[in-house]
Amino acid sequence: MQRRNFLKQAGAGATAAAASLGLAACGRAEEKPAAPAVHAEPSIKWRMTSSFPKSMDILWGNGERFCRHLRELTGGRFDIRVFPAGEIVPGLQALDAVQQGTVEMAHTCSYYYVGKDRTFGFGTTMPFGMNARQMNAWLYCGGGQALLDEFYAGYGVLSFPVGSTGAQMGGWWRKPVRGLSDLKGVKMRIAGLGGAVMEQLGVIPQQLAGGDIYPALEKGTIDAAELVGPYDDEKTGLFQVARHYYTPGWWEPGPAIHFFVGRRAWDALPGAYQEAFRVAAAQTNLLTCAEYDHGNPLAMARLLQQGVKLERYPEEILSAAFEASQSLYADEAAKNPAFAKVYGAWERYRKNQHTWFSVIETPLDRFVQGRG
Amino acid sequence: MQRRNFLKQAGAGATAAAASLGLAACGRAEEKPAAPAVHAEPSIKWRMTSSFPKSMDILWGNGERFCRHLRELTGGRFDIRVFPAGEIVPGLQALDAVQQGTVEMAHTCSYYYVGKDRTFGFGTTMPFGMNARQMNAWLYCGGGQALLDEFYAGYGVLSFPVGSTGAQMGGWWRKPVRGLSDLKGVKMRIAGLGGAVMEQLGVIPQQLAGGDIYPALEKGTIDAAELVGPYDDEKTGLFQVARHYYTPGWWEPGPAIHFFVGRRAWDALPGAYQEAFRVAAAQTNLLTCAEYDHGNPLAMARLLQQGVKLERYPEEILSAAFEASQSLYADEAAKNPAFAKVYGAWERYRKNQHTWFSVIETPLDRFVQGRG
Repeated sequence: MQRRNFLKQAGAGATAAAASLGLAACGRAEEKPAAPAVHAEPSIKWRMTSSFPKSMDILWGNGERFCRHLRELTGGRFDIRVFPAGEIVPGLQALDAVQQGTVEMAHTCSYYYVGKDRTFGFGTTMPFGMNARQMNAWLYCGGGQALLDEFYAGYGVLSFPVGSTGAQMGGWWRKPVRGLSDLKGVKMRIAGLGGAVMEQLGVIPQQLAGGDIYPALEKGTIDAAELVGPYDDEKTGLFQVARHYYTPGWWEPGPAIHFFVGRRAWDALPGAYQEAFRVAAAQTNLLTCAEYDHGNPLAMARLLQQGVKLERYPEEILSAAFEASQSLYADEAAKNPAFAKVYGAWERYRKNQHTWFSVIETPLDRFVQGRG
Repeated sequence: MQRRNFLKQAGAGATAAAASLGLAACGRAEEKPAAPAVHAEPSIKWRMTSSFPKSMDILWGNGERFCRHLRELTGGRFDIRVFPAGEIVPGLQALDAVQQGTVEMAHTCSYYYVGKDRTFGFGTTMPFGMNARQMNAWLYCGGGQALLDEFYAGYGVLSFPVGSTGAQMGGWWRKPVRGLSDLKGVKMRIAGLGGAVMEQLGVIPQQLAGGDIYPALEKGTIDAAELVGPYDDEKTGLFQVARHYYTPGWWEPGPAIHFFVGRRAWDALPGAYQEAFRVAAAQTNLLTCAEYDHGNPLAMARLLQQGVKLERYPEEILSAAFEASQSLYADEAAKNPAFAKVYGAWERYRKNQHTWFSVIETPLDRFVQGRG
């Protein structure tokens, strides 16, 4: 399989094309003339609206740390203040607030905006897409970020990846799910493209604000709800009303979090501040993922101690979901040129990456896992 | 397996202990009073000796980019110049040069120095250890970096993780390896703890400088040689004289690259420069790994086009190597208190991480890989 897949890529000329994108591309956005000395620069104050509440303390904390480091890197002159979801605008309107110039930037997820255009999904994660490392490779080195920024330009913003939650869990269920037939007519709190795929499998996707999930699950108004992973989910207490915790969250294999920055605000920044912003954003990317990878196993151990049942989606459901997602991509690409453009590049990169990870990373991880 | 493993951790009190290390630890090294404004700071020039030649262009390039960004973040005042391996000192003496004050810092791998003390291995990677993401979680959030810096203090240096190559390949072999009996008496260019484990399996480890490997493999003076992965290995041309390219490199599942900085030089830096250094080092960490993940599949496709045979180490060898590595750890811990101290913490963290990755990341990656 691997040899055939690799040679297919090579044979299709993808190798040459990708090589020309190549490594130079990784640093491209950062290649620029030496910035003027920071001390000559003006004081600038920005506001950042976060899509996250303070209770999601990894994401919230990394937003605050980014701002603190940026102040330190600029002698206190570039001062960004973060506001939690709801304080300036609701969490899911963060992009709109940047687009309208209400704030200079947002800490958010691109896929919150798939209602405007499904192309937004590629910025964060897609069902059966890339894992966290693969997303970074694509965004920084594979031309992904540049391609997305072309799309985001239509909304007056540019983007900076600032971390991943890692692959997310598949949600909390009141009852076990043993096969496709158990999905028919069930009500699940799930949004975006994951919800669209689940709908193809018979689920009735529900949109509920965070605070409404617990009572709905408790009363049985809904049957299931997906959130993030153990670290964030533990705090919601959902395990008290829906004990079956499913894996994997196949619709979110490696979600990238983003800063969206208004183009006008960005262009008005001195070069030295842009540089400090980029470097601190990359640090935020690294540490957000490290904090989730650190916190999730500890939270999972605590959840299991409280009687949570860890369950796996049956192969039958994964296979049907995979097929449904591929159909969804093909259908959307046929009618949405922006989606089609990103999808073509993303899909080639995704296959290439998964073929590569199947050579070492995944089999070696599996071997070690098998040794306990 | 997962439930039992998680509960074992929880039951052993590891959860509470790890939780108290907790997330606050992730940012700990960075929590400090606001730095003074950069413009008040002096001009400082440092030299960094690299363990890498310019031909290893991802590692070399990231060293140079780090220095460029640091200059930009400090208005040109903190100026570090990088020297390739051999220009000031040979690549494998980079730590010594920092320790002796010949240079202020090195771009190197901790495990190059296991000849001084096997504890150095933990900084980079250990046979059947953690993958690249898990290493970051341990180093930044799990107390790993602080623990290692206690050890490195004995050599007058402190450390900054600056990227990973990802899991490495298992080397170039002139003939296929079908089982343990094929390892008896073969000569393999492999250093460090991987070499020590291979020796337990009957291999005769060889130490050869980079330029000597090709002729030795060509003449059959040695039977095999391990280097890095497709991106770096391709340039050596070894595939022309040893066509069997083995996976996985179980002795290097997620090697972290490091900057070692002399403690005195570090302590003499203004706080603002320390801050800029930390942030730029984290960016270097992120981008180094992204560049390897980007470049490796492209290089692998080119190698396969040239007739390279991708082969897997048989389960029999992996199992024997796993057992031999566990014995090596136990033996070393029994006689080396520094090793024992890091090993205890590392081993708990490693198990915890692999249990967690077995829940979502690995099975989801496998599923997608199976769909081509």
